[in-house]
Amino acid sequence: MTRTPILLPDPSDETLTRPVSGRDQNGNEVQIRVVEERPLTIFLNSQEIVTAMTIGDYPEYLALGFLRNQGMLLADDQVTGVDYDDDLETIVVRTARETSYEEKVKKKTRTSGCAVGTVFGDMMEGLEGLKLPPAELRTSWLYALSKQINTLPSLYLEAGAIHGTVLCEQHTPLVYMEDVGRHNAVDKIAGWLFRHGAPVEDKILYTTGRLTSEMVIKTAQMGIPVLASRSGFTAWGVEIAQQVGLTLIGRLRGQRFVCLSGEERLIYDADITAVAPENRKHRRKSAAHD
Amino acid sequence: MTRTPILLPDPSDETLTRPVSGRDQNGNEVQIRVVEERPLTIFLNSQEIVTAMTIGDYPEYLALGFLRNQGMLLADDQVTGVDYDDDLETIVVRTARETSYEEKVKKKTRTSGCAVGTVFGDMMEGLEGLKLPPAELRTSWLYALSKQINTLPSLYLEAGAIHGTVLCEQHTPLVYMEDVGRHNAVDKIAGWLFRHGAPVEDKILYTTGRLTSEMVIKTAQMGIPVLASRSGFTAWGVEIAQQVGLTLIGRLRGQRFVCLSGEERLIYDADITAVAPENRKHRRKSAAHD
Repeated sequence: MTRTPILLPDPSDETLTRPVSGRDQNGNEVQIRVVEERPLTIFLNSQEIVTAMTIGDYPEYLALGFLRNQGMLLADDQVTGVDYDDDLETIVVRTARETSYEEKVKKKTRTSGCAVGTVFGDMMEGLEGLKLPPAELRTSWLYALSKQINTLPSLYLEAGAIHGTVLCEQHTPLVYMEDVGRHNAVDKIAGWLFRHGAPVEDKILYTTGRLTSEMVIKTAQMGIPVLASRSGFTAWGVEIAQQVGLTLIGRLRGQRFVCLSGEERLIYDADITAVAPENRKHRRKSAAHD
Repeated sequence: MTRTPILLPDPSDETLTRPVSGRDQNGNEVQIRVVEERPLTIFLNSQEIVTAMTIGDYPEYLALGFLRNQGMLLADDQVTGVDYDDDLETIVVRTARETSYEEKVKKKTRTSGCAVGTVFGDMMEGLEGLKLPPAELRTSWLYALSKQINTLPSLYLEAGAIHGTVLCEQHTPLVYMEDVGRHNAVDKIAGWLFRHGAPVEDKILYTTGRLTSEMVIKTAQMGIPVLASRSGFTAWGVEIAQQVGLTLIGRLRGQRFVCLSGEERLIYDADITAVAPENRKHRRKSAAHD
């Protein structure tokens, strides 16, 4: 059954970017659109947890997903309310369960993620004994996803300076979230999954930016068995992927990729000669604005 | 007086990367080098502040710079000792002044920086009334720096998945720091400046990654009047730059750039026709590994 995309970026949403004037290399006046970056303070019940800098399109998914990925909101938690105050730039997630995460909130880890993400508590907590389920990963899907994600209209293509994370199924991008912070983008996916209760064992997570330990941990915690990126790896990211049995695909560009973990899921069904070498026009951080 | 580089990346340092085996798109075994990512727990006197994920090349500069950029180490603080324990992966910075930052440590902000950076306390604190000094910025310097930084041997060109921040003077890269986290890279620069007491009013900070609010704030706090990147901007980054009078140059690629703040420092002395259009070979996240 072929899925169709559920949620894609809306670059025409004018609240997400702002026109700014300046000078170009010739001293001529130019006007470009730049992405907005706003604080959002996230509360869990009465406890202030963190302030996230975000483009502000999906505060609820961001709050729910952040809390899930920090292990402060549990998979079976009953959320009794989500109160977003646009003026105060705060959002309160309320649960039936009483919560108190003083200690967890204190233990901060600055990770290498592309997008500041405070990782409370022991980063490896929750991965103990975790083994991701078997799954099929056809290389034809990787190429199809790569191509679509690079060409779909997005804030990135409009205004740059942004990261994206896409929840995919086979060759279809289903939920494509963007944000100034890549960790926000992945947290929004987690928030969407929490809200909508979709199965995850058959999903692929595609992300821009690097496959660091934090990205691998979040993907594993979300129960998704495949993580792919056009960017590179860190050693610890690879180690953790191997530990939890995650299929880790990096340097996915044009006809190429490198798989450093979970190779057993791969089915090499693509006719590589039919895959175009990387189209420079669609290269991230490239000619889209030149 | 022409300066010469002081500190450049050492991609031959084998502790910074690790060889890992995997499969390529044809199912053939490949071996690539991936960057290391290790935790470093930073203490200020007896107080644990944060754990940073880093490649681990300059723990002292990272600790000093992080604390400076968080406003926990002051410009005139006397550092009485820096104790680095490689086994425990901790570093303790000791000061003559008694310190206690419980409240500051509690107030965390997840910013959009490319590299998780916890920004304790009020992000805008310390920018009150700050105005950066006048300075000359010749466009010929921007092009020369861009070219050199893209071609110098670096961990990025070796193993990818890394960010760099370079302290420059006129057309010379002086101190080039890399790390898995861009915020670590800029904090290492701040740590170097703190240790060596160099003047900053005549410096340029070049960074990979985006010109977010956090990057602009750190540059301003360091007293450096020019910040340049090949990447794009966020709206708040531009606003803060305008507030403190920082010259903000983005989308610096080949012959082009956009200046969205502090245009008055620019002197258009470059002969643009003599500047090569962007050489695709030196494009970040591009063909270097293909």
